Amino acid sequence: MEIPVVRNVLEANAKMADHVRGLLGGRGILTLNLISSPGAGKTSLLEKTLTDLGGEFRMAVVEGDLQTDNDARRVAATGAQAVQINTDGGCHLDSNMVLSALESLKLDDVDILFIENVGNLVCPVEFDCGEDAKVALLSVAEGDDKPEKYPLLFNLAKVLVLNKTDLLPHVDFDMGRARRFATRLNRDLEIFEVSCRTGDGLCAWYDWLRGMRRAKKEGGSAAGFASA
Amino acid sequence: MEIPVVRNVLEANAKMADHVRGLLGGRGILTLNLISSPGAGKTSLLEKTLTDLGGEFRMAVVEGDLQTDNDARRVAATGAQAVQINTDGGCHLDSNMVLSALESLKLDDVDILFIENVGNLVCPVEFDCGEDAKVALLSVAEGDDKPEKYPLLFNLAKVLVLNKTDLLPHVDFDMGRARRFATRLNRDLEIFEVSCRTGDGLCAWYDWLRGMRRAKKEGGSAAGFASA
Repeated sequence: MEIPVVRNVLEANAKMADHVRGLLGGRGILTLNLISSPGAGKTSLLEKTLTDLGGEFRMAVVEGDLQTDNDARRVAATGAQAVQINTDGGCHLDSNMVLSALESLKLDDVDILFIENVGNLVCPVEFDCGEDAKVALLSVAEGDDKPEKYPLLFNLAKVLVLNKTDLLPHVDFDMGRARRFATRLNRDLEIFEVSCRTGDGLCAWYDWLRGMRRAKKEGGSAAGFASA
Repeated sequence: MEIPVVRNVLEANAKMADHVRGLLGGRGILTLNLISSPGAGKTSLLEKTLTDLGGEFRMAVVEGDLQTDNDARRVAATGAQAVQINTDGGCHLDSNMVLSALESLKLDDVDILFIENVGNLVCPVEFDCGEDAKVALLSVAEGDDKPEKYPLLFNLAKVLVLNKTDLLPHVDFDMGRARRFATRLNRDLEIFEVSCRTGDGLCAWYDWLRGMRRAKKEGGSAAGFASA
């Protein structure tokens, strides 16, 4: 009795996600959905990216949280457009929430839109928000077994940002093991090792963003958006 | 249309949870439901506890994971009884899953039962599994803002274990801020600062377990089980 209900929810979400993707894609906006556990560093990655690439791209952020507008205030402090969605206890964003949030943004002034999902390695993965690609984050403090234990995100993401590499000397994290598990789930996964605290490794992430944005502007074929 | 469906799910779960609580309570078993983000250290806390208190109590573990039986194998290596629930993508355990898992345990040989929930700071909080108390874990690598951003768990838990204190010199974590947020949500919250890596602080957690187990054996009134 329950399975059809869930399927309908996901089908309705997928339809609305396609609408959101069309609306943003029509403007050439590259849209990325950031998904991770709480505290893996999504907001820190955005703060760094918005600051360092602020002269190159016009960026905006849709922030998802159960409560508070702390994160939207953190990213807005960089000068980027930001809008906060409070799910009031809800465990993920969906495409309809994102569509509502877009009303608060000046989309004509946006090159790249980041959706920062609720901190949760499970539920947000199932809900397409109209993005071009999902970006998975994992902090090395969480352990190298997480791709194996929470496979769906690593299977569906286009990119994995391994964050907090400055903690590597202080935690039991085998980088080779994490990479092996992740690429076994997804052969095409691009992996960046970064520390948002020290700035190490962010250049490669920025270059990837530049390439994605260029491909999006040129019509999307190069980056394989058709399969997004 | 959707709200009544959710309410029925939670009502059915609550009824089954009371059944589980009765079944375990009738045997004097203290039951604790461990909830945290992925990688906060639930399994590590169990490994330490099962090893250090193995001579004092007969302990068993119900392990919840989306995939793999890695964690059940880790805790079984200490000699404790362990059973793995794979939710196959599901984001939380519920009381019916726990009831099924109990069939694999010799309950006459158990003083303390730990339920290690799926790593998720949101969904597991809503599903009573028949426990006497919820134990929240938070790694200091996740940031001191998590109680404010994910309030329900900290509101409902009886205990907060702040883990990975060995990383404090290397992360931006304000212990006073985390404690303030958490106790604002829950004045009676007991907080233990521990490092499962070094063993620091575990004594206080063990003493709390001893007190809870004693109260449970004596009928449950001292520790306020009536309100669990």
